Amino acid sequence: MHFCLHPSAFCHKIHSMTFRIFLIVLATLANLNRTYADDLTDIRREITKRHDESVKRLQEWIALPSIAAENRNYPTGAEYMAKLARDAGFQQATVINTDGKPGVFATLDAVAPKTVGLYFMYDVKQFDPAEWTSPPLEARLVDKPGLGKVLVGRGAVNQKGPEAAFLAALLKIRGAGKKMPVNLAMVAEGEEEISSPNGDQHLQRAEVEAAFRKTGGVFMPSASQDLNGTVTVSLGAKGVVELELVSSGEKWGRGPAKDIHSSLKATVDSPAWHLVKALDTLVSADGNTITIDDYPKPRPLSAEEKAMIAEASRRRSEAQWKTQLSVQHWIDDLPWQQAYERLESQPTVNIEGLVGGYTGPGGKTILPHRAVAKIDMRLVPDMKMTDAVAALKAHLAKHGFGDIEVNVTGGYDPTGTAASAPLIQAQIAVLKRDGIDPVLWPRNAGSYPGYVFTDPPLSLAAGHFGLGNGSGAHAPDEYYLIDSANPKVQGFDGAVMSFVEYLYQLAR
Amino acid sequence: MHFCLHPSAFCHKIHSMTFRIFLIVLATLANLNRTYADDLTDIRREITKRHDESVKRLQEWIALPSIAAENRNYPTGAEYMAKLARDAGFQQATVINTDGKPGVFATLDAVAPKTVGLYFMYDVKQFDPAEWTSPPLEARLVDKPGLGKVLVGRGAVNQKGPEAAFLAALLKIRGAGKKMPVNLAMVAEGEEEISSPNGDQHLQRAEVEAAFRKTGGVFMPSASQDLNGTVTVSLGAKGVVELELVSSGEKWGRGPAKDIHSSLKATVDSPAWHLVKALDTLVSADGNTITIDDYPKPRPLSAEEKAMIAEASRRRSEAQWKTQLSVQHWIDDLPWQQAYERLESQPTVNIEGLVGGYTGPGGKTILPHRAVAKIDMRLVPDMKMTDAVAALKAHLAKHGFGDIEVNVTGGYDPTGTAASAPLIQAQIAVLKRDGIDPVLWPRNAGSYPGYVFTDPPLSLAAGHFGLGNGSGAHAPDEYYLIDSANPKVQGFDGAVMSFVEYLYQLAR
Repeated sequence: MHFCLHPSAFCHKIHSMTFRIFLIVLATLANLNRTYADDLTDIRREITKRHDESVKRLQEWIALPSIAAENRNYPTGAEYMAKLARDAGFQQATVINTDGKPGVFATLDAVAPKTVGLYFMYDVKQFDPAEWTSPPLEARLVDKPGLGKVLVGRGAVNQKGPEAAFLAALLKIRGAGKKMPVNLAMVAEGEEEISSPNGDQHLQRAEVEAAFRKTGGVFMPSASQDLNGTVTVSLGAKGVVELELVSSGEKWGRGPAKDIHSSLKATVDSPAWHLVKALDTLVSADGNTITIDDYPKPRPLSAEEKAMIAEASRRRSEAQWKTQLSVQHWIDDLPWQQAYERLESQPTVNIEGLVGGYTGPGGKTILPHRAVAKIDMRLVPDMKMTDAVAALKAHLAKHGFGDIEVNVTGGYDPTGTAASAPLIQAQIAVLKRDGIDPVLWPRNAGSYPGYVFTDPPLSLAAGHFGLGNGSGAHAPDEYYLIDSANPKVQGFDGAVMSFVEYLYQLAR
Repeated sequence: MHFCLHPSAFCHKIHSMTFRIFLIVLATLANLNRTYADDLTDIRREITKRHDESVKRLQEWIALPSIAAENRNYPTGAEYMAKLARDAGFQQATVINTDGKPGVFATLDAVAPKTVGLYFMYDVKQFDPAEWTSPPLEARLVDKPGLGKVLVGRGAVNQKGPEAAFLAALLKIRGAGKKMPVNLAMVAEGEEEISSPNGDQHLQRAEVEAAFRKTGGVFMPSASQDLNGTVTVSLGAKGVVELELVSSGEKWGRGPAKDIHSSLKATVDSPAWHLVKALDTLVSADGNTITIDDYPKPRPLSAEEKAMIAEASRRRSEAQWKTQLSVQHWIDDLPWQQAYERLESQPTVNIEGLVGGYTGPGGKTILPHRAVAKIDMRLVPDMKMTDAVAALKAHLAKHGFGDIEVNVTGGYDPTGTAASAPLIQAQIAVLKRDGIDPVLWPRNAGSYPGYVFTDPPLSLAAGHFGLGNGSGAHAPDEYYLIDSANPKVQGFDGAVMSFVEYLYQLAR
């Protein structure tokens, strides 16, 4: 044993030790990185090799649309979802009943230190084939100028395409002979498109809740690149209530209980006018401010949220978005940044649909006994769905419309996750490594039932992730990009690869 | 030659002459009556003999529905109408073009002193076979408990059934070897069910107007008996305007020009709310009083009209009518007679249909770019359609809704005929002879384009006539009574006979 008394010698020894440790760490990291890089190369090769097979699997899935509003393909769709999960490597995937359509619960145990939660949906939105340029269940590959080859079909981007890409990632990791870096716990819902009326029931099962308690957060596969390749990392979503306001002669006790000849309007009350008068009380003259008595109030935007919006409004093109939406003016002619702030901060009461009496071509001289407004109400933090519905009902009763039925068909509270959550930070890390500087965004103006994960008792982080591009959710000609003609935007294989990278990152 | 100087002798002679003239007149009348009675007996026999053939002709007609709103069976329906007229004895029946669907003009010259005008329609209302218990184009004969055998089909009572019965009357008069008692001039319209947008064009043709100038009035065959056998003689009808109010992002310049995701409501205006706000300004809070600025005002009921209504309210059952309409209360809880007065005296703005955005089952989270209210407005004397439409447009513009399209699809002014008109008095005479004490009624609360006859330049009397019963116009399971189980209500043959009697009466 010798003692180096000279401080510099001591320091040298220390430095030498530090250096040696540094070298060891460096070598380990290099080794890890080489392993990681080798893994990725092998997996990427496997992804390319199996491209056609993966796309075919997605096409077959699209051919089986589960639509809760039409009670179509249940429980077939759930059984198919479970099979897809098992095929992708989940050791168990079970159809679980709810009060509505069944869900699927699946787990993949990789004997890994970390577990990641997944939220899937296997249902899709209604569609009218007459409005499509390509049959919505055939999932044809179509050239989209400037973008590349896209797959056109109902559910292509919302959400089967990204979900199929995620499942392909699992298959390709295994196919390349690699070990899954994390364990997985998944729930897949069959009623997302009717606003998840039973979305919380999956997690009320002890074994499902226990599986998700082990996770560090939950994400849903998505196609998050815009046409410039930019990715938005959203920290939550608005809540939503979907409901029908039904005015009818039967409930009102005035007007007819069946459609009668319109000439009788001179002496018979009209449930359709009754509905119009009730609707009129819900919003301001311009239709934009909620005037329901004692309606829950939004929490103002935080300084951090405002900063995110300011940054986003600098980076995103207002003109492009207006063109895409076919909108000439924002509400109140707001400038771009304030329009974005309104989008992020304000609750809405929107008319999705009006349907009463004769709705065909031309006219038909009837006095309808029934008229319906289909309404969706978006909720921002910290509004609660139960408070919003209670306020609406009390308001209608107070204003003489207590007979109008408020038929809630689905909905849930808002959801939010901190930017600092590891689930989110892992996304940012993967994206930056891929040369993408993501736009952070307070919350989606749309909704998904993330509250089941982010609210107590689980109180987990939750988000969306996935490279790739698609559009037309809920609309005709919905698509998901398969072969990209734009190097900044990933096609199907790039999306698969992004999920592989994210899983590896989450394992760290 | 001798002179009778004694006044009594003179008187006797006069008396004797009077008596002889009286006898001659009596004999002539008896002869006439015998001729009339014989004629009727022969014709009645012919009607009975040809019953099945006549019903079959009606069934074949119903199998060919002309529906203007669906552009269905044109000009086929007009050609068929012309053929039916020729088959019934009209020497000429011509399809005549209008700016919309064609009409038919037909004349029957019986070399009789008098000419009677006829108004027919050959089109029928839209229908949805799924709502019918019997296929709407098969015109099946179905037992209706308490009523008898009815023919169920679209157009059965509105208006092919009564019209077929009238044409059968012409065939049977000829078939019985009798001479037609009057000449006939007929127009048949193909757009009655879309509120006759070109209804006046038939009479703008010189040869049609000339033919109608020779008539003492115009009637439309109808089935006017209620279930008690009572007949209402109506002295006119309200006018009507049918229109669509269309709110769209395209015209508004606000909101989207296509359906977009409903989450965008937080920053994009809503054409559906814009429509609701516009509608709200058109009527009072209860939906019953028109609040359109400077809207034409109704003429108050005359003492004669009030007396008719008082008499009708005594004779008709309020309870029965409420049950039939499935209505528990009239507007403002009015008592029966006042409810009738409101029906007869008040104009209406009625919502026939509301259609915007998603109208299928459940919900769909969209912000619709377009919403439509289908409106009909009934007009009472002396309101004019042009004034009503102009007031509506000016009102919308004044209240900030100038972008909302007012698409008028049809309509016309009110029509009225004096009770003293020979056309009406002949109806009353026939009915009384058949033991029916008719209810006189100021006007139908519904509409028909009688104004083309009653307004200048023709200024003719116009009305409806026909025994028999039917119901369900514009509704599923529309029917026309064929074989009556109720001696007070006429079936098909009784209806045919009523037309025969009416023509003979009009010849007097």
